Amino acid sequence: MAEPEQQMLKIDACFSPYLYPVYKDEDSIVVIIDILRATSAICTAFQYGAEKIIPVATVEEARLYKQQGYLVGAERDAIPVDGFDFGNSPFSYMGEKVRGQTIVITTTNGTQAIDVARGAYKVVVGSFLNLDALCSWLVSEKRNILLLCSGWKNKFNLEDALFAGAVTEEINKRSNDFKHGDACLALKYLYQMAVKDPYKFLRYSSHKERLARLNLKDDIKYCLTPDQTRIIPVLANGALVKMCV
Amino acid sequence: MAEPEQQMLKIDACFSPYLYPVYKDEDSIVVIIDILRATSAICTAFQYGAEKIIPVATVEEARLYKQQGYLVGAERDAIPVDGFDFGNSPFSYMGEKVRGQTIVITTTNGTQAIDVARGAYKVVVGSFLNLDALCSWLVSEKRNILLLCSGWKNKFNLEDALFAGAVTEEINKRSNDFKHGDACLALKYLYQMAVKDPYKFLRYSSHKERLARLNLKDDIKYCLTPDQTRIIPVLANGALVKMCV
Repeated sequence: MAEPEQQMLKIDACFSPYLYPVYKDEDSIVVIIDILRATSAICTAFQYGAEKIIPVATVEEARLYKQQGYLVGAERDAIPVDGFDFGNSPFSYMGEKVRGQTIVITTTNGTQAIDVARGAYKVVVGSFLNLDALCSWLVSEKRNILLLCSGWKNKFNLEDALFAGAVTEEINKRSNDFKHGDACLALKYLYQMAVKDPYKFLRYSSHKERLARLNLKDDIKYCLTPDQTRIIPVLANGALVKMCV
Repeated sequence: MAEPEQQMLKIDACFSPYLYPVYKDEDSIVVIIDILRATSAICTAFQYGAEKIIPVATVEEARLYKQQGYLVGAERDAIPVDGFDFGNSPFSYMGEKVRGQTIVITTTNGTQAIDVARGAYKVVVGSFLNLDALCSWLVSEKRNILLLCSGWKNKFNLEDALFAGAVTEEINKRSNDFKHGDACLALKYLYQMAVKDPYKFLRYSSHKERLARLNLKDDIKYCLTPDQTRIIPVLANGALVKMCV
């Protein structure tokens, strides 16, 4: 008799784009996670009416788009790169200037994660901002799920892990169909420790310290606030477009 | 003025040998972790008087040593490989047969982790069996520490993460000199959730299920029992030898 678990769907988490080849499964839905701040900024831009977002891996590519007249966001080491329209603060992607626009974006970690996962069955963008919409949709798809944390320069980071834990927990509440990989087992515990006060939970994290030094506490608080949009950005022909659920 | 954290020592954890190049720092002490069961078996062998352990990455290398008359342990996918003296059950490394011997060992995950870390300042072997001795020694060394989890076929695994959390917590108790990387911050929380009953904590972990199917529950319980030896295996000229503290 087959073991029941063999018929279950799988949910697992990968803590670094560098590690993606080990977890790669082309039949999975891959959720790209870069909480501080790329995937939060991307969700914000769509919420404010952006039409399309083209993620590119390098500043050089971004510059070529800029020369062609595109709106372009470029960030490295948490700082906006000179000569572009945006960094990766979600606040800069609000308002009329993004409505109906195609925006090109390159960031230290998040756009690299999108790049490595391109071949997957479906690539979507997750952040606390679209947590509820994302989890409901993921459950309805009945597919294996891989939560791909962008991390910081390919190292594990706490805020992406925390969000991956939130997704694991929310999917758990909605469905018993998923078998958890070991990373998701660990993340569930992590999220349970953090859920009452995620801001405080992150107080010693490396990237929070990095952003606090840059006076970006409001960015952090915004990025940790759940359910501000029902839009799920999805990769189609190399660009992110919105899927409303 | 320099920030105080720049003068602190660092402790971080790497969840896969595959990810080691990202964390590599040749001035660090690297602690190799493969709780179920390679690093537990290695600590056991030294406790029972083994003189030297030569870790090799492949079964083919192990076979060459066997042909030369060495005692050889070989395990793949949690099962002993035919034609060798041991698998990687710690119980098989007990008793008179190991006393004074040089043993060659190859395992699915643990010996690969030793292999990638060879160039580090110092490479030592950790398990619950030598937890107290290991942590006291690590603090006394006043060096950066990298906890290298062997994982399972390069994926994150729960029991190695749990032990890395135990080391983080024990070092925390002994010293305020260490700044925690994000992975260690997460692991501390994980260990705090698990410490009352690690066996129960691991109940859904993939490798525990794998071993339970093979009737290896006693192995698991043994591997989770702290402080059975004061020996710290250390890599010297390609072989592990014992350091008593």
